[in-house]
Amino acid sequence: MASRYVKRSRKAGLPPGSLIHIGKEDNTPVKITVFDYNDEFLEEREVKNVEDCFKYRDTPTMTWINVDGLTKPEIVEQIGTQYGLHHLVLEDILNTEQRPKKEDMGEYIHLSLKMLYLDHANEGRVIAEHVSLILGRNYVLSFQEGDKDVFNSVRERLRTGKGRLRRMGSDYLAYALIDNVIDNYFSVLELIGEKLDSLEDELVDDPTPETLRTLYTSKRATLFLRKSVWPLREVIGGLAKMESALIQPQTIPYIRDIYDHTIEVMDIVETYRDMQAGMLDTYLSSLSNHLNQVMKVLTIITTIFMPLSFIAGVYGMNFKHMPELEWMYGYPFAIGLMLATIVAMLIFFRRRDWI
Amino acid sequence: MASRYVKRSRKAGLPPGSLIHIGKEDNTPVKITVFDYNDEFLEEREVKNVEDCFKYRDTPTMTWINVDGLTKPEIVEQIGTQYGLHHLVLEDILNTEQRPKKEDMGEYIHLSLKMLYLDHANEGRVIAEHVSLILGRNYVLSFQEGDKDVFNSVRERLRTGKGRLRRMGSDYLAYALIDNVIDNYFSVLELIGEKLDSLEDELVDDPTPETLRTLYTSKRATLFLRKSVWPLREVIGGLAKMESALIQPQTIPYIRDIYDHTIEVMDIVETYRDMQAGMLDTYLSSLSNHLNQVMKVLTIITTIFMPLSFIAGVYGMNFKHMPELEWMYGYPFAIGLMLATIVAMLIFFRRRDWI
Amino acid sequence: MASRYVKRSRKAGLPPGSLIHIGKEDNTPVKITVFDYNDEFLEEREVKNVEDCFKYRDTPTMTWINVDGLTKPEIVEQIGTQYGLHHLVLEDILNTEQRPKKEDMGEYIHLSLKMLYLDHANEGRVIAEHVSLILGRNYVLSFQEGDKDVFNSVRERLRTGKGRLRRMGSDYLAYALIDNVIDNYFSVLELIGEKLDSLEDELVDDPTPETLRTLYTSKRATLFLRKSVWPLREVIGGLAKMESALIQPQTIPYIRDIYDHTIEVMDIVETYRDMQAGMLDTYLSSLSNHLNQVMKVLTIITTIFMPLSFIAGVYGMNFKHMPELEWMYGYPFAIGLMLATIVAMLIFFRRRDWI
Amino acid sequence: MASRYVKRSRKAGLPPGSLIHIGKEDNTPVKITVFDYNDEFLEEREVKNVEDCFKYRDTPTMTWINVDGLTKPEIVEQIGTQYGLHHLVLEDILNTEQRPKKEDMGEYIHLSLKMLYLDHANEGRVIAEHVSLILGRNYVLSFQEGDKDVFNSVRERLRTGKGRLRRMGSDYLAYALIDNVIDNYFSVLELIGEKLDSLEDELVDDPTPETLRTLYTSKRATLFLRKSVWPLREVIGGLAKMESALIQPQTIPYIRDIYDHTIEVMDIVETYRDMQAGMLDTYLSSLSNHLNQVMKVLTIITTIFMPLSFIAGVYGMNFKHMPELEWMYGYPFAIGLMLATIVAMLIFFRRRDWI
Amino acid sequence: MASRYVKRSRKAGLPPGSLIHIGKEDNTPVKITVFDYNDEFLEEREVKNVEDCFKYRDTPTMTWINVDGLTKPEIVEQIGTQYGLHHLVLEDILNTEQRPKKEDMGEYIHLSLKMLYLDHANEGRVIAEHVSLILGRNYVLSFQEGDKDVFNSVRERLRTGKGRLRRMGSDYLAYALIDNVIDNYFSVLELIGEKLDSLEDELVDDPTPETLRTLYTSKRATLFLRKSVWPLREVIGGLAKMESALIQPQTIPYIRDIYDHTIEVMDIVETYRDMQAGMLDTYLSSLSNHLNQVMKVLTIITTIFMPLSFIAGVYGMNFKHMPELEWMYGYPFAIGLMLATIVAMLIFFRRRDWI
Repeated sequence: MASRYVKRSRKAGLPPGSLIHIGKEDNTPVKITVFDYNDEFLEEREVKNVEDCFKYRDTPTMTWINVDGLTKPEIVEQIGTQYGLHHLVLEDILNTEQRPKKEDMGEYIHLSLKMLYLDHANEGRVIAEHVSLILGRNYVLSFQEGDKDVFNSVRERLRTGKGRLRRMGSDYLAYALIDNVIDNYFSVLELIGEKLDSLEDELVDDPTPETLRTLYTSKRATLFLRKSVWPLREVIGGLAKMESALIQPQTIPYIRDIYDHTIEVMDIVETYRDMQAGMLDTYLSSLSNHLNQVMKVLTIITTIFMPLSFIAGVYGMNFKHMPELEWMYGYPFAIGLMLATIVAMLIFFRRRDWI
Repeated sequence: MASRYVKRSRKAGLPPGSLIHIGKEDNTPVKITVFDYNDEFLEEREVKNVEDCFKYRDTPTMTWINVDGLTKPEIVEQIGTQYGLHHLVLEDILNTEQRPKKEDMGEYIHLSLKMLYLDHANEGRVIAEHVSLILGRNYVLSFQEGDKDVFNSVRERLRTGKGRLRRMGSDYLAYALIDNVIDNYFSVLELIGEKLDSLEDELVDDPTPETLRTLYTSKRATLFLRKSVWPLREVIGGLAKMESALIQPQTIPYIRDIYDHTIEVMDIVETYRDMQAGMLDTYLSSLSNHLNQVMKVLTIITTIFMPLSFIAGVYGMNFKHMPELEWMYGYPFAIGLMLATIVAMLIFFRRRDWI
Repeated sequence: MASRYVKRSRKAGLPPGSLIHIGKEDNTPVKITVFDYNDEFLEEREVKNVEDCFKYRDTPTMTWINVDGLTKPEIVEQIGTQYGLHHLVLEDILNTEQRPKKEDMGEYIHLSLKMLYLDHANEGRVIAEHVSLILGRNYVLSFQEGDKDVFNSVRERLRTGKGRLRRMGSDYLAYALIDNVIDNYFSVLELIGEKLDSLEDELVDDPTPETLRTLYTSKRATLFLRKSVWPLREVIGGLAKMESALIQPQTIPYIRDIYDHTIEVMDIVETYRDMQAGMLDTYLSSLSNHLNQVMKVLTIITTIFMPLSFIAGVYGMNFKHMPELEWMYGYPFAIGLMLATIVAMLIFFRRRDWI
Repeated sequence: MASRYVKRSRKAGLPPGSLIHIGKEDNTPVKITVFDYNDEFLEEREVKNVEDCFKYRDTPTMTWINVDGLTKPEIVEQIGTQYGLHHLVLEDILNTEQRPKKEDMGEYIHLSLKMLYLDHANEGRVIAEHVSLILGRNYVLSFQEGDKDVFNSVRERLRTGKGRLRRMGSDYLAYALIDNVIDNYFSVLELIGEKLDSLEDELVDDPTPETLRTLYTSKRATLFLRKSVWPLREVIGGLAKMESALIQPQTIPYIRDIYDHTIEVMDIVETYRDMQAGMLDTYLSSLSNHLNQVMKVLTIITTIFMPLSFIAGVYGMNFKHMPELEWMYGYPFAIGLMLATIVAMLIFFRRRDWI
Repeated sequence: MASRYVKRSRKAGLPPGSLIHIGKEDNTPVKITVFDYNDEFLEEREVKNVEDCFKYRDTPTMTWINVDGLTKPEIVEQIGTQYGLHHLVLEDILNTEQRPKKEDMGEYIHLSLKMLYLDHANEGRVIAEHVSLILGRNYVLSFQEGDKDVFNSVRERLRTGKGRLRRMGSDYLAYALIDNVIDNYFSVLELIGEKLDSLEDELVDDPTPETLRTLYTSKRATLFLRKSVWPLREVIGGLAKMESALIQPQTIPYIRDIYDHTIEVMDIVETYRDMQAGMLDTYLSSLSNHLNQVMKVLTIITTIFMPLSFIAGVYGMNFKHMPELEWMYGYPFAIGLMLATIVAMLIFFRRRDWI
């Protein structure tokens, strides 16, 4: 996880505002889709050249431009120039390490979010993908790091034309997109929660170092989630209180609703953290318990056999004058002595509640 | 406990405001009761069809509609439409995972609470039931997740007609209902407290892994309670400071009173958490102590018998020329040597305060 | 300690404002004393019937009515009716579990405090007694749970007639009473502190599970004290900043003074908590140390005697052809071998710094 | 350390404002020195009778009266009466347990500080001496608990007459005195820091219970310092923001400067606390490590010699019919078997990385 | 690390504003470079005498004077006099222990920063170098403790003349310098992060006390970084909100951008701290695990061989009348008995899941 910060230094020494893609390098091609609509009309297309989507800028209709993939900074730059975005905003869009933030730039609002997935291949680590939203008067621009398109359900709702989405403005579209992102957090939380449930049973039944490692992975995933959600709370909370002409009064309750959801996510995250801390305690005290068990067995064995061996040792001595050795019932006597010792020991242990 | 978040994702991808019951699925039938009253008059009935309770909306008298069971979203929706509730509010009413919250919607105030029970069948886990209150000018709507009706004492007080309840407005009725919910928290706390008391004695007298498990269940119950009460504090505190025409000045002291109660609940919860943390420490140090005890026994046994066996071993050697073996008093001498060793050991242990 | 919350549920389901004594049940008779005074005049009497103290209400002189014992709610109610107290205030006066609070009711100020004692009979647990003050324009009402009258020194100062107490108003009297309560906290803290001092020496010299239990009792007492003082800070702080005609400007410095004292109490409490945490660490590391000591002894004994016994065992074998056995100096040779082993072992241990 | 709170209860029950010296009892005689100066003129004298310093009150020049020793309350009272100090302020001056505080009394500002020393005789405990400053329009009164005069450098600067000190007003003098006190904190911190440095090396090289005790002393000293500095931050911070005619604008940057110093002291204190926590962890894990080492030695010895002794035991049996015993090469065979066992064991341990 | 505070006491007792270099003593010569430029013109020179750079003060062009090395206080003093800097500011510039701070002195803004490096020679400790910036109307003064010049990239951008740097004012230059400093933090963080990554693998594969020591060094470095960045957050945040004529509106977004970076640094630092805490837990539980492993081996060996040796001991007794000894199959019988014991033990261990 630490290694995810490695790429950041690539920018050290460059002038601010230099547009460089900071993040994992993959060669996913950039895909641009445009939705242009009002409550009666809808045009949807995938554009090949970034110039093709500029003509929608001056239409009175709502425009949603979605860019999947951040590997080509020049595309982001071209769109930025068309829509008059500040070059620091463009820098943030390209910086996939950018933490969630909200900036009111007057003409438009810039939102930075994290889309989260569980990487099942990699022991359930949480993967974050950078999502940026630009909310303007009659347009929304969305930039996604990866190609796992999470906005499909919004697209579907736009296409079917029913629901508030087609009637309301850019702020409601932005809301719908954010809602989509946060709904996904619940799915991630559920997966972590299910794992915690099974982990808990394992801890009680048969704790192994492997269990501990799984617990740490789970802790780390939760920590990661927490880091993503904490600033989000502030972002959405700020959005709800924002006095901007871009956000209409009737959208406020919806934003307050997603604010509630982020609080709920935080709550669950904190509960998980408490559970994980408790599970670590369980693990450690179960280790101690186990050690006690082992020690008891060792002590019982030693305590029983040492006196017995000693008795055998005594009668194994080679003194010429040892009356017992000559005695007819010496051997049964020794065996009897041994049995008596065993009985005494068992009574001692029973009293101490060891057996 | 983690698994309680599983159902939330059922909504992912749906448009906001979709009315779906989120929560445990049970088939408890929905029961609707109506109280219509002023200080002289009282009508109480259980309605079969939701439409039957709409006529009370426009009466000048106080109306209290209580809905037990949230499994039929359409009933909530119909009442919502009649009383002009925002569809996001309806969504919150149906979402049994909704955390305590308060929303001033102008025409009405929406309150979300948690009713708590101890599930004795299930190791004393805490069960939360979702309760929603809508406080309007001359009506109160209450929606409960389960059928364990906790508002019976309020009903009784309405029926007998004595007390402030019949004379005062909807805000006082809402207060009475919330008071009922919070009073129940004290009962839950007492049950947890009694368990802690007996746990404590167990920990001192005879700590077992079983005790630890009970402690963890208790910790978890407290944690759960805490999660429910924390936001409640804010909700009730906000209600007391609210500037709404719906809350009359003479009701404020009553709301401040239940605010005090929530603070008290928080206090007790925090005390329990401190006690539980202390009990875990006691458990662990008692484990260590026990290990020390076992180790001492082992060491004493070993330290006493090893030299004795060694002496026996020496005189068990088969050398031809060992003067002691031929000696008349060889055997008593060996026994004497052994006794001396025991005495020396005992003095050594006594000095170390081990016996 | 948990069990102290049990009684609270007796009220669940009752209408708010129901006057029931919540607290330990004892049958201490209720004792009412009245002081009526100005700087020239003083009347002191103990009244049998509560009605006897009503006539003082309308005198221009300062009146202080003190009630010892809360077991008869009707007495509190009668006084409350005479002085026009809100029934929620009366409820708080009777609820001995009420946490410290301050309420400005316009005509009067209601203060809820805790008087603290150490119960020497019961392992030094802290006992809290509920004290309520009603500060009116020219009267102060005080209600105490128990009969341990802590206000004697105030009484004495009133009687002797010297000092500011007789010249100044009801706010100064209330201040003097609160000051009395808080001064008592220092006595409790000193007792706890002395115990901690002796505990510390015990921990270093000879830690036993008994020491640990004493430490836990001390922790719990401190925790309890903290719970009582934290809200007090807010209460007194609020009193100092209050804009009420009942509190005169020249009394403010005095209230700020007791505010300083509460801060000081908090400081000492936090220091004690830090000390206690440190002492628990000392205890645990001393346990570990002890275990190490025991293990070393065990290991040294084992390491020395195992090779010796082995050598004895070898020469105890019954092979026909063992040249050493026949050898003239076989026995001295074996003994020499053993001594050499011991020396080697001692050097080994000396190198490891074990002996 | 706990015992330092014992004296406080001496005041319980006394009327507020009673002037009693609370603190360690020593018989240091009280010493009063007066500096009367402006930028051209300087008079310095030690007065025998407190009345001798009253005449300076009405001079237009700056007057600094310093009192060393608080054992004679009457002296403080006389000065207080002359300068019109509130009797609660006098009480605070005499109360050596008074925590740092700042009070704006209109005519003058009252500051309460702590001078800190390390008591080398007493295992490096931190000693706090109570210092009070009264900053008036053209006078500064300073009261010190002990006779270790820390203001000598200020005196020297006054005498030499160079620097801002002689030109500026009472606020600058007060600043210079506070600066002196805080500079001393750095000296104390350095001594603690040096001890921590050497402790750290000890912990790595050879941890003993003695090292742990030294660590606890260091922790306690840091804790004590922290308790003194935390409120100081507020005091100095408040002084910088204070709107009082007594503090001139050009002195503000100087006060901000000492505010920075208190922040720096806090920073170092927190760093030390973190280091101490880390060192405790090191100590405990080094104990665990050591235990592991001891256990390994024990296990290796046991594991090697038990099978060997067993083999010897087998051939020490006295059966009539044991072919090996008669065999010519029985003895060498047994020895070979033992050597093979040793080799097998060594391979086993090598594989487990134990040797 | 503690020893870095030692030098601070050198100033105790000196009048405030005494210009003494506080910090590590090295004899790096002081190097002064001047950039005088506007968007068309650029003069760059290294001055030998500090007087040579005074002539730039009154030019209308932007002037940047950079001083490498603080060992000659008189140079700082001369520049300070020329530019009218407060002597407390000069003191802060020379005090290399000064924590990050921002002071608005009206005519100019004083910023104190920390440049961070990892000292690879010294186990990866973090080294901080003190950097001070004075931002005036048309000049920026920068003072650096060391000679590792970190501002080279800014110089390069000035020289090439492209970019905003040449066109904008002193606030943008100051921003560029701060940006440079903070970018360097990411490099330090990456190096720490890489070390943590490899540490983690080591902890799982083969934890040694050496690993623990490396972990502590890493913890300490993170702690140190945190201490430097926390106040920085406040400094930069304050700068963004500052209402000063020296900071132009168009520079604000850039300052907000570096504010974001400091937040991000804080985030990573906190993540590292969480990771380090987790790694310490892993280490300790791995120690416990190891102890358990060792104990099991010991117990298994003891449990198997003690009964075997006992059997051998019994038949090694020298009783005259022991039928087994005479028996033809006595020896095989004894061996059989031993084998049966081994089998029983193995079954016992298998049941306990020990082997």
